[in-house]
Amino acid sequence: MPELRRGPTSNRWVIVAPERAKRPSDFERKPAPASTEEKPGACPFCPGNEHLTPPEIYRIQGPDGWRVRVVPNKFPALQDYHELGRESVDGVFDRMHGVGAHEVILETPDHNCGLADMAEEQAKLVLDAYIARIQDLMKNPWFRYILLFKNHGKEAGASLAHPHSQIIATPIVPQEVRSSLQTARAYYRSKERCLFCDVMLGEIRSGERIVELVDGYVVSTPYASRFPFELVVYPRTHSHDFTTLSPEQRYGLARTLVRTLGRLKALLGDVPYNFVLKTTPNPVPRPGQPDYWSTLPYDYHWRIAILPRLTQVAGFEWGTGFYINPMPPEDAARYLREVKLPESCAS
Amino acid sequence: MPELRRGPTSNRWVIVAPERAKRPSDFERKPAPASTEEKPGACPFCPGNEHLTPPEIYRIQGPDGWRVRVVPNKFPALQDYHELGRESVDGVFDRMHGVGAHEVILETPDHNCGLADMAEEQAKLVLDAYIARIQDLMKNPWFRYILLFKNHGKEAGASLAHPHSQIIATPIVPQEVRSSLQTARAYYRSKERCLFCDVMLGEIRSGERIVELVDGYVVSTPYASRFPFELVVYPRTHSHDFTTLSPEQRYGLARTLVRTLGRLKALLGDVPYNFVLKTTPNPVPRPGQPDYWSTLPYDYHWRIAILPRLTQVAGFEWGTGFYINPMPPEDAARYLREVKLPESCAS
Repeated sequence: MPELRRGPTSNRWVIVAPERAKRPSDFERKPAPASTEEKPGACPFCPGNEHLTPPEIYRIQGPDGWRVRVVPNKFPALQDYHELGRESVDGVFDRMHGVGAHEVILETPDHNCGLADMAEEQAKLVLDAYIARIQDLMKNPWFRYILLFKNHGKEAGASLAHPHSQIIATPIVPQEVRSSLQTARAYYRSKERCLFCDVMLGEIRSGERIVELVDGYVVSTPYASRFPFELVVYPRTHSHDFTTLSPEQRYGLARTLVRTLGRLKALLGDVPYNFVLKTTPNPVPRPGQPDYWSTLPYDYHWRIAILPRLTQVAGFEWGTGFYINPMPPEDAARYLREVKLPESCAS
Repeated sequence: MPELRRGPTSNRWVIVAPERAKRPSDFERKPAPASTEEKPGACPFCPGNEHLTPPEIYRIQGPDGWRVRVVPNKFPALQDYHELGRESVDGVFDRMHGVGAHEVILETPDHNCGLADMAEEQAKLVLDAYIARIQDLMKNPWFRYILLFKNHGKEAGASLAHPHSQIIATPIVPQEVRSSLQTARAYYRSKERCLFCDVMLGEIRSGERIVELVDGYVVSTPYASRFPFELVVYPRTHSHDFTTLSPEQRYGLARTLVRTLGRLKALLGDVPYNFVLKTTPNPVPRPGQPDYWSTLPYDYHWRIAILPRLTQVAGFEWGTGFYINPMPPEDAARYLREVKLPESCAS
């Protein structure tokens, strides 16, 4: 069973996952072995190989086979369990069982068509699957945050090339999410306005860092971008909860994501990137247990952060949580605005 | 001039360094060009090539040439300047001039002898240089934190192979440092004991994560290690300020660092790693301006974190500040304890 541990000085939770444990020799530096998927037909995420994944959790069916599938991660970072087992170790350390869920969303049957090249129709089905899975996981009272993310490319942590994203449900609200909620709440209390709405309107007014205003979404490079070509996609209408998107809003987001990832690819080639959904923590409807985060999540604003992995993160960054970015976000936005958009795989 | 920017929702300071600016084509993925230093004799950090670095700031002279040199970074992330220029942009963003310093410590004239293989005598001179430079930079009233770090290996962000470390002086206390100071202060107020001393004594009592107790230092793998084989070196006697080390304590630390990095190398080969010194922020002795951080830094405890770069940091980690570690720190400590230590370059 994986374990969640909190460091006494960092207040940071870490998942220690013995199921993923390795021996020192596994970390020795050697040329990467040819991955199984490079053998034609051996990709466990391709149609015909459904028996290679753990049993399916969710599927969107098309006329000739599945269009999106969700399966448990074969090496889950967190697992379902009947108790949290929160306890103190030696007086200063905190631990709990690694309770949670870890799922993989197979975004398309087409091994070679990632989100940047996808037909908008298919990308919208991916969003449907995201929302269906998040809504289902939110029903579990142990789960406090549902984290949706995508690792694209080896340097971004993807171990398989077939287009996929992941969901991890955690029994705590992660520190970065908690801290941005607190900042947003303090701002709301002082101004009676959403901090993210204010940031977004400031960006639109200045225009310097805007990449595109499209279909109800604002795509911009953050003022304090940590990474070259870092991007954020905000819904223009205030909403704290990603899962409340209407079908029309899903189409808009599908189009926006495909266009934005397409711009990155047209400008920089098939770069490794991560994207992360930031949305509200789960409300906790346990009777008699009023919960801080459930009272007022309406001062939050969901968004998607896109983080290209073009620079090495060095000691400076790890030691201080403070970054050096050689690409001013105003320049990055300009380069991205000027891109000529390519056509999708399907068109 | 570089600029410091703070994001309104993350509260994180980022250095935007146009001096280091690049065009999109510089980020395109292509095979790494043969670095200049790979041509024999072309390393700018080797003896005989002193003219290739900016003018020297500090040197420790030996009988036949320098033993340690400190030079400004050729592409500094922060620069000396006569005012901070703190201001608000568009109401929600904070910025200031990129005021600071960025220096490089050349640890040895020997291109091929890193800290893991170094004679203890030479490693002690490196520590002397660290302390001399930090003490000098602490005199500048704009500098609030002096960050000492080392990037070893390309994947850890080192652009040159010749053994070197870096110092960046910043006009703010970085967020992670500030947050751990706050945690330590709250603990001290509640318990009247240093949090780090308590953690260290807890580690010694349990022994599970101890790698070595040597020469007045405790080497252990942190309870909530983010990375496989992450290490921390604490001085066993309480001290908040790294620069107060006596000559004898410096010898002890030199020996401890060489042994610890030697263990890592013997176990895992020449792995890329970062190390970061965590020490007290600068006291601010401006008359009439009492400063929060200068009143009670004695509840802090300096230490050196060593972070091997064996795993890819993926979207999950960037999105939440919460990590998956496939190597339980108890196992890592055991592997490291059992290593047979190699001999140094000089012996």
